[in-house]
Amino acid sequence: MGGQMVEYEDASPEVRAVYDDIMATRKTDLINNFWKVLANHPPTLRRTWESIKEVMAPGALDPLTKEMVYLAVSATNNCKYCIASHTAAARKAGMTDEMLGELLAVVGMANETNRLANGYRVQVDERFKS
Amino acid sequence: MGGQMVEYEDASPEVRAVYDDIMATRKTDLINNFWKVLANHPPTLRRTWESIKEVMAPGALDPLTKEMVYLAVSATNNCKYCIASHTAAARKAGMTDEMLGELLAVVGMANETNRLANGYRVQVDERFKS
Amino acid sequence: MGGQMVEYEDASPEVRAVYDDIMATRKTDLINNFWKVLANHPPTLRRTWESIKEVMAPGALDPLTKEMVYLAVSATNNCKYCIASHTAAARKAGMTDEMLGELLAVVGMANETNRLANGYRVQVDERFKS
Amino acid sequence: MGGQMVEYEDASPEVRAVYDDIMATRKTDLINNFWKVLANHPPTLRRTWESIKEVMAPGALDPLTKEMVYLAVSATNNCKYCIASHTAAARKAGMTDEMLGELLAVVGMANETNRLANGYRVQVDERFKS
Amino acid sequence: MGGQMVEYEDASPEVRAVYDDIMATRKTDLINNFWKVLANHPPTLRRTWESIKEVMAPGALDPLTKEMVYLAVSATNNCKYCIASHTAAARKAGMTDEMLGELLAVVGMANETNRLANGYRVQVDERFKS
Amino acid sequence: MGGQMVEYEDASPEVRAVYDDIMATRKTDLINNFWKVLANHPPTLRRTWESIKEVMAPGALDPLTKEMVYLAVSATNNCKYCIASHTAAARKAGMTDEMLGELLAVVGMANETNRLANGYRVQVDERFKS
Repeated sequence: MGGQMVEYEDASPEVRAVYDDIMATRKTDLINNFWKVLANHPPTLRRTWESIKEVMAPGALDPLTKEMVYLAVSATNNCKYCIASHTAAARKAGMTDEMLGELLAVVGMANETNRLANGYRVQVDERFKS
Repeated sequence: MGGQMVEYEDASPEVRAVYDDIMATRKTDLINNFWKVLANHPPTLRRTWESIKEVMAPGALDPLTKEMVYLAVSATNNCKYCIASHTAAARKAGMTDEMLGELLAVVGMANETNRLANGYRVQVDERFKS
Repeated sequence: MGGQMVEYEDASPEVRAVYDDIMATRKTDLINNFWKVLANHPPTLRRTWESIKEVMAPGALDPLTKEMVYLAVSATNNCKYCIASHTAAARKAGMTDEMLGELLAVVGMANETNRLANGYRVQVDERFKS
Repeated sequence: MGGQMVEYEDASPEVRAVYDDIMATRKTDLINNFWKVLANHPPTLRRTWESIKEVMAPGALDPLTKEMVYLAVSATNNCKYCIASHTAAARKAGMTDEMLGELLAVVGMANETNRLANGYRVQVDERFKS
Repeated sequence: MGGQMVEYEDASPEVRAVYDDIMATRKTDLINNFWKVLANHPPTLRRTWESIKEVMAPGALDPLTKEMVYLAVSATNNCKYCIASHTAAARKAGMTDEMLGELLAVVGMANETNRLANGYRVQVDERFKS
Repeated sequence: MGGQMVEYEDASPEVRAVYDDIMATRKTDLINNFWKVLANHPPTLRRTWESIKEVMAPGALDPLTKEMVYLAVSATNNCKYCIASHTAAARKAGMTDEMLGELLAVVGMANETNRLANGYRVQVDERFKS
């Protein structure tokens, strides 16, 4: 395992069912490496896909906003795979160069002020506690 | 220092100028504890405020989206102060309970899949590299 | 330095003594790159090896559990080297594909719920404080 | 929201169904604050509980090992709530003081060596890549 | 355990020996809570103290620089206890308010640019690889 | 974008002005990849450079100490680019192999004890709170 990918033709019916649902939901015939690797542990593949499908569906937040939040977290954690795939997904959902520029500027500032607040041990304002 | 706050009446003219700009920009007469503590090092107060003012201004992304991205980073880093203050700021900018619920759901999933991608050492798909 | 490796034949007696102990303890004649690089600062090589040897020895927890905990931390931190070397070590200690699958599933969920608990600012239950 | 808890008597049928399942599965009549706060966003409550129930069930890894891995991640991320609740859960599953001592010793060492490997930019050994 | 402290009068001879060495080395009669809690697992108390004593001793870097680096890491990780204790230790070693201000400014900027470098997936310059 | 670099000959006057200032300030005719990528979003390029120039200038802390703190944060966050570039910058400012060895030893220990303090939930000593 560890990077080894399960291709469609080698997959069990359980895994194929998830792959089919991914391709149908995303209207594509490509399966990302992420899913092909998760397929080494079918319960994790199924559970993760079902959660992602539910969480990333349009709701009170639109899909573009959700993809940008995903990218913000991935850049903060430095997950190389996730940054690459969610930059692509956010672009597909409409993110322009200018929006990416502003997004990363906010991510950068948030990471800076997070450490200033921690390092100076700033007390939470009373009005923010409620 | 370390938590000690510089109040307006005790502040130097340099610090007061920043406080005045914060209050004018945000249309409030309240200065958050964060700024009062940063005032212990006036160059950091000034530089951080100027960056935040520029970065958080409306642009290709609207202020609400920026506040939610800020909150997503702060929840990922577990900066207690930042979570409290940016939850309040996002609500003021229009975030509903339903939007917060979806936002944190995405943040949670991103943190989960970041570790699955890392732990399984997933290779970046060729088409995400360009 | 920064990646440069100290090979056995070029090593000082102090470094060789550590290499010898590593090979004897682990019953192998291979020295991992990690140790070869640490050898650039012999006190860190010696101290780190002695700590690892003590901490990873069987005790109240068995070596496999310890290796899996090590891997869980490394996946959370996204330390590429550590994920690779401790996945190998855990497999050598008996970790199967199924166990790795469940391990990373827990790591993923823990990283997700950590952010949900942070983001919602959940108060610690009284009964968990004692 | 943000810390506000949904008690059983005020909960919707959807939320009550999850609470009932938590209490039945864990053989307790106590609902942790974590779930009471997640109940502000019922889809996240349901999805998170279902994932946790599946992931933490006994499988190739026993429940105690899983709780200790959960705690290791939470200590690494400094999630105060999660450390408190999963220390309690691990103790209930059989973790002794000695086991906790060894667990945290491994967590500490892993966090140390993660940074040594990163800081020295150690290349992954060829034999760990496969 | 979990926060419970082992006081000198209740400590085993093994723990007392470490406490005695801490007090002698630091020329104080106070034992920090950190050590009193580690004393629940005596091997970790001993090993951690011996490592800290060696690592923090004056060498190619002076003790003040070392304390400031410690604080920089602790602010980045948001370890509340460590920020509080190492701010105190750095002040004792000579850190002024101005130095703390500059230190946290660097820590903040480093955390910002770390995410900009990650988020934009900047390739390492050839001349930095050697 | 995402890795694409803006070379001097293709840059807008706004971007060239920043590049010119970087080369003049650092007395070099090389622009690091980091700046060439930030140039995709000129306001972030300008703002980040101005902050870095101000924060890294000699003050109460000397430039070498600042570079080592930067490196300590980057190693903790595992920002590959930042570790490579700031190791080079610190060496240029006078960091020897011995100093790097001690620096990373402190970074490693800080990351270890941060988790021990978190994992054991150590209460902050009263005298560290003021």
